[in-house]
Amino acid sequence: MTDQQQLPPDVIAQLRAMDPEIGPQLAQATWALLTPFHEKAGYTAPEIDRDLAYGDDPRHRLDVHTAGDGDQDHQGGRPVFVFVHGGGFVRGDKHVPGTPQYDLVGAWAVRHGYVGVTMTYRLAPQHRWPSGAEDVAKAVAWLRQHIAAYGGDPDKIVLAGNSAGAVHVASFVAGQGGGDPASIAGAALLSGIYVIRKPDPDEPEHLYYGADPDPAASSLPGLLETSVPLLFGVEERDPARFQTETARVVSSWLSRHGTVPPLIWVEGHNHMSGIGSLTIDESALGTTLARFIDRHTTKGTPQ
Amino acid sequence: MTDQQQLPPDVIAQLRAMDPEIGPQLAQATWALLTPFHEKAGYTAPEIDRDLAYGDDPRHRLDVHTAGDGDQDHQGGRPVFVFVHGGGFVRGDKHVPGTPQYDLVGAWAVRHGYVGVTMTYRLAPQHRWPSGAEDVAKAVAWLRQHIAAYGGDPDKIVLAGNSAGAVHVASFVAGQGGGDPASIAGAALLSGIYVIRKPDPDEPEHLYYGADPDPAASSLPGLLETSVPLLFGVEERDPARFQTETARVVSSWLSRHGTVPPLIWVEGHNHMSGIGSLTIDESALGTTLARFIDRHTTKGTPQ
Repeated sequence: MTDQQQLPPDVIAQLRAMDPEIGPQLAQATWALLTPFHEKAGYTAPEIDRDLAYGDDPRHRLDVHTAGDGDQDHQGGRPVFVFVHGGGFVRGDKHVPGTPQYDLVGAWAVRHGYVGVTMTYRLAPQHRWPSGAEDVAKAVAWLRQHIAAYGGDPDKIVLAGNSAGAVHVASFVAGQGGGDPASIAGAALLSGIYVIRKPDPDEPEHLYYGADPDPAASSLPGLLETSVPLLFGVEERDPARFQTETARVVSSWLSRHGTVPPLIWVEGHNHMSGIGSLTIDESALGTTLARFIDRHTTKGTPQ
Repeated sequence: MTDQQQLPPDVIAQLRAMDPEIGPQLAQATWALLTPFHEKAGYTAPEIDRDLAYGDDPRHRLDVHTAGDGDQDHQGGRPVFVFVHGGGFVRGDKHVPGTPQYDLVGAWAVRHGYVGVTMTYRLAPQHRWPSGAEDVAKAVAWLRQHIAAYGGDPDKIVLAGNSAGAVHVASFVAGQGGGDPASIAGAALLSGIYVIRKPDPDEPEHLYYGADPDPAASSLPGLLETSVPLLFGVEERDPARFQTETARVVSSWLSRHGTVPPLIWVEGHNHMSGIGSLTIDESALGTTLARFIDRHTTKGTPQ
């Protein structure tokens, strides 16, 4: 009935069997398992324009992924899907050469008819809150100005972040980074943290938020009030902290709106393999994510 | 990239614009909108064996939906997907002649490679709690004995219920109807109620639970302890009560298991159109539901 790609059950079983604790071991094991599937499916879009500067810092860079067919066949422009990587606030990159990280997200976007964007941002400890949100704001402003040249519609920008990337996107949506959050069409927040408490020194966010975070650093109050459409995501094998955070979002959203928030529970995947499942395991996350993007970028219908 | 069927955005927008309050008006408007899509896609499986008696009551009836290709090509049998309809405890049927209700579910099951079963159960006020759970138990026992003749594997029975149907399935899983809940491979609980309080006389469940429900009638404590794999579902446009119930399940599950429960939030749909979206809007519910069934009926891999 469908030609959706899915990972074989034994691969999902291997993902599920891994210790979910976030660290180099999980990253190594996860990507070792997923990469052959990405190599088979292809993880680079036909055209990638790399390292476009959206600001002055060397980390203010983004890659634009397109079908390479010019803009002759899409009237008014395509949706623009922007991915903000994770890495505990202190590491990570839009592009790890020779790996699917994160060209795979750009390729997925193009397969679904979007323009894909992968971006990098400044890191802690050199740069602290709200630098991540400021960088997202800067990138959005740059895209609003330049993405039409790549066939993208500046009014159809949907952001997604994973882990620390979700924290930065949420922080931008909540207005902590300046810019114009209302200019985006939606934001998908995958495995993020939205209530910032005094951090455990073992957790990486003290490097970003400091030992005594600004009470204004939590994005949840802003998320509850924003008019930007949101989709929250949690992986089946996300560590306890992210499970708790998702339940907190559900109860806060219910109190504020009387409904469960738009939510995707990603079957079988861990903190890293959820976003890593795009294209190769579409029924896990990709199908729902594309439905979210399509809903909020379709012209001429009530949203 | 995919040949999944999806409803056009304007149809989803019409669903979303409806008053979500459950009643004849919502049913009429919802099915008027969905039926033409089911007529186009086809909503009857190649073979339907109707009104098989799984017990003595006239409502102890089930229909078996198959591909009509005998059992020569499936070694060891196919997964069996059993749907329990809703109707506020007092009405509803497995089959409303001349409509897609609920042959569409059987056809969907067959399209995904399962044997489909749609069943009817005794109704309130003549029959009260736990008659629904008892009937689910009876039907499961019957299927365990007879479904191999239809190419189904008696060890791969997955139940799904919508609304009052979800209440009965949950009640069976929690052990309230006797039988052998551990004999099923999984249960999908769509828009159900799992904590039974003293009912508002305006709500139909007082006819089923009585004015002063047995404290043992709530299925949530049993659901939190069962070894049966569960998937909870809530529709975007489910009324407030079901939104609240879902948030309650999330927080209780977190307390008990430290995780968010397996959960599907059904984008764009209402209390009736969620299950009504199978086949014609696969990315809403069908994709995730099939993934759940596949995961828990795949042989030879850790679950």
